[in-house]
Amino acid sequence: MNDLELKNNLLEKVETTFLKTIERFSLLSKGDKVLIALSGGADSVLLAYLLKKYKDNSQVSLFACHLNHSLRGNESLRDEVFSRNFARLLGIDFVSKTVDVKSFAMEKKLSIEEAARKVRYEFFEEVMREKNLNKLAIAHNLDDLFETMLYRLLKGTGVSGLIGIPVKRFFYNTSTEIIRPLLFITKESIVSYLKLNNIDFVFDSSNEDIKFSRNFLRKNIVPLFEKRFPFFKERIVSLYNILWDEENFWLAELSKYDKFVVKEGGDFKILKEFFKLDISLPLKRRMIRNVINNKMGINAYLSFDTVDKIIFSLKDEGSRVLYFSKKIKIYSNYGDLVFSLPDENQKDENTILLCEKRFAFNGFEFQFDILSFEEVKNLNFKSTPVCLYFDATGSLKFYLRFYQNGDRIYIDQNKTKKLSDIFVDYKVPRFKRKNTIVVFDENNSIVGFILPFVLSRVSKLFYVNENTKKVGMLKICG
Amino acid sequence: MNDLELKNNLLEKVETTFLKTIERFSLLSKGDKVLIALSGGADSVLLAYLLKKYKDNSQVSLFACHLNHSLRGNESLRDEVFSRNFARLLGIDFVSKTVDVKSFAMEKKLSIEEAARKVRYEFFEEVMREKNLNKLAIAHNLDDLFETMLYRLLKGTGVSGLIGIPVKRFFYNTSTEIIRPLLFITKESIVSYLKLNNIDFVFDSSNEDIKFSRNFLRKNIVPLFEKRFPFFKERIVSLYNILWDEENFWLAELSKYDKFVVKEGGDFKILKEFFKLDISLPLKRRMIRNVINNKMGINAYLSFDTVDKIIFSLKDEGSRVLYFSKKIKIYSNYGDLVFSLPDENQKDENTILLCEKRFAFNGFEFQFDILSFEEVKNLNFKSTPVCLYFDATGSLKFYLRFYQNGDRIYIDQNKTKKLSDIFVDYKVPRFKRKNTIVVFDENNSIVGFILPFVLSRVSKLFYVNENTKKVGMLKICG
Repeated sequence: MNDLELKNNLLEKVETTFLKTIERFSLLSKGDKVLIALSGGADSVLLAYLLKKYKDNSQVSLFACHLNHSLRGNESLRDEVFSRNFARLLGIDFVSKTVDVKSFAMEKKLSIEEAARKVRYEFFEEVMREKNLNKLAIAHNLDDLFETMLYRLLKGTGVSGLIGIPVKRFFYNTSTEIIRPLLFITKESIVSYLKLNNIDFVFDSSNEDIKFSRNFLRKNIVPLFEKRFPFFKERIVSLYNILWDEENFWLAELSKYDKFVVKEGGDFKILKEFFKLDISLPLKRRMIRNVINNKMGINAYLSFDTVDKIIFSLKDEGSRVLYFSKKIKIYSNYGDLVFSLPDENQKDENTILLCEKRFAFNGFEFQFDILSFEEVKNLNFKSTPVCLYFDATGSLKFYLRFYQNGDRIYIDQNKTKKLSDIFVDYKVPRFKRKNTIVVFDENNSIVGFILPFVLSRVSKLFYVNENTKKVGMLKICG
Repeated sequence: MNDLELKNNLLEKVETTFLKTIERFSLLSKGDKVLIALSGGADSVLLAYLLKKYKDNSQVSLFACHLNHSLRGNESLRDEVFSRNFARLLGIDFVSKTVDVKSFAMEKKLSIEEAARKVRYEFFEEVMREKNLNKLAIAHNLDDLFETMLYRLLKGTGVSGLIGIPVKRFFYNTSTEIIRPLLFITKESIVSYLKLNNIDFVFDSSNEDIKFSRNFLRKNIVPLFEKRFPFFKERIVSLYNILWDEENFWLAELSKYDKFVVKEGGDFKILKEFFKLDISLPLKRRMIRNVINNKMGINAYLSFDTVDKIIFSLKDEGSRVLYFSKKIKIYSNYGDLVFSLPDENQKDENTILLCEKRFAFNGFEFQFDILSFEEVKNLNFKSTPVCLYFDATGSLKFYLRFYQNGDRIYIDQNKTKKLSDIFVDYKVPRFKRKNTIVVFDENNSIVGFILPFVLSRVSKLFYVNENTKKVGMLKICG
């Protein structure tokens, strides 16, 4: 092919993919009022450009917005100005807002990435409400999709999770939708398209929350794949399509069982009759995720093992906590499965009694055991960030809860130290500390703490020694 | 953990995973007679060792076999002797066979990998029949599984294909089964287990058919993943479990529609009524793959696009070829979908008329067009291994078929050359040549040929020149 042909091919391919995506997934209909999230980077610039082109042949109206995160000083300002000018050039109404994300992150004890995401989506929601818009167009591309799918594969995922970035989904449990019409176009094509059409854009250095791992994949893995499997990004589009169709099949199936989900106050309940139906396990698994992610709108990830454990450990009798995290508490109540938000004010609600051998807490699988010292005297009792060993001779019950401000631990027979000071000693970032898990006994004495995979410490009062008869072991397995 | 604990942990983990896999997927039952495929390498040695251990607590009988491929001279012999001795040590009956795979490959025009695989599985089948065994145990491990899943992801796959290596499947459409009890254990754990137990094994340099790409992934990609995502191999086990359950759900659903599949002579037919049912697209897709892979037992891979094209282009009228390859021919016959084997003797059955714009042939998606010279005079008409341009002015119809011995092409106005000689000039390996596609016209004149992504040539008689009025274009798109 000569240059002209190559150029025409590329332009046509980008536009066709864009149009096909809109059609195949019914992303837009007549009368839609679309908010474009415009960062000024290549992706969102192309998104705005193509939507503008599309608008002229359909009956959709457009609106653009830009959030200045104030994270990169002059560069942030430059992006905002660029976005405003570009929207004006296209003749699209535009609004921008500036937020000090850093301060917000400090205040809410979030990582910068978490904070930026929260602020951004709240801004989108605000604009959509104020301007009465019903679609939010976001410019994720095929590189993002591939990296997310690969990242999920490496970190562990199920079929639904493998979809990675939904091409269309409801926004905050409302009837407004998030759409991603560029999801099947590579970054390279996007940039070439803009350059061939002499359309300017800024280089955005912003990144998503899984920033570091994503950069790792992008810089170290993708170039190697590119050499060996030149079409690998395009190749996953089929898989995506198949997954999408299958997921929709499952969701349609699921909707047949809506009557088994009951809302009670702020809680949701899956009635025990549901789990006795002769339906497939994949559907039961999705029912649980569906209640958490869609009905309650909680962004909590339960592992496959946890979900299966919940399904298989449901019993018609008693009440028992099956899963507990900062975000959600799941317990069985005479066979019904109850989902509730952990109440931050009620201290007792936030603790669990360590009596099960295997249980889930805050997204980790734990094993808890009380062992006789004889059984295990060959073991090395040094606690690690994945396992606590402690003297369980004198106590009857042990409990678990999240770290609270003011928690102290015995570092000697009669000297305590604040956990927060220990965190400072070990340079644990502030936003990470909240995941620290504290073990305490029936007298509210702190036995030890564990910040999974980072740090752990056992109280001097609970050290395993020659007088120990029973050893408590709390281990992360998942 | 100290060394002893580490060691016990590893031994326990390997054995637990082995037992859990057998239980979870019902790999073995009382009375089973199991053939162990013993290469002498770490994987199959552990497989034999653990099955022997398992046998003592259950009611299963074991038999081992070894195929000497004669590919590595003394090393091949060493492996055979080692395997015999190891089986004797365990007290397991053993049989071996030597085959000259290289000659077999030459004779059958197969690649060494294809030939080795064919010979190996025929040997397994033979032993199982002779000794009346009902299970074949093969020692694929978690590294193999991960690499296969990643490879499929990069090369393009659907949900069913993502499973990669089935932990259990029927063997050659019989009631005997292939089982893989080590599928969730890493290579590293396998080797450590053997070393800790002082069990000897040989280093096998044998590899599967996707050898080069697999080696590439193993050597270049996996070590990078290992650093960043230490548990990545274990993490895909959940996905595998989920995929497995979902696939079984789909297969159970599919079995409800068995009455729509009819066998007629050697052909299979999906009745047109099936495609009019109000059932989900994923099920329709699986129906087509199921007829090909399970009913007919053909190892043909149709792309997602091809399958969807077949479904959506079915019409109640006429008869039309929808897909054609060396392995299978699929056509619609008044709305029924017919699957048949291409008959190697009937020449006409093996040709297709080029009349559609887009069609599939031998696993590639093609586009065929007749363009007016005016329309396309700016294009560069040089044919490439993905696109043939030829003078279509004088002919009414063009056809496609596979290369046949003796095919010749005009390299000048009155001088022809054998295709086989052109292959020699370009050093095309013998086993690859069979995929060459030849275009010819209604007078049986050869217009040109294309060996996808390798080589193409247009007959001098069909060169595009200043007298050309219509240009034929045959392009690979998929």
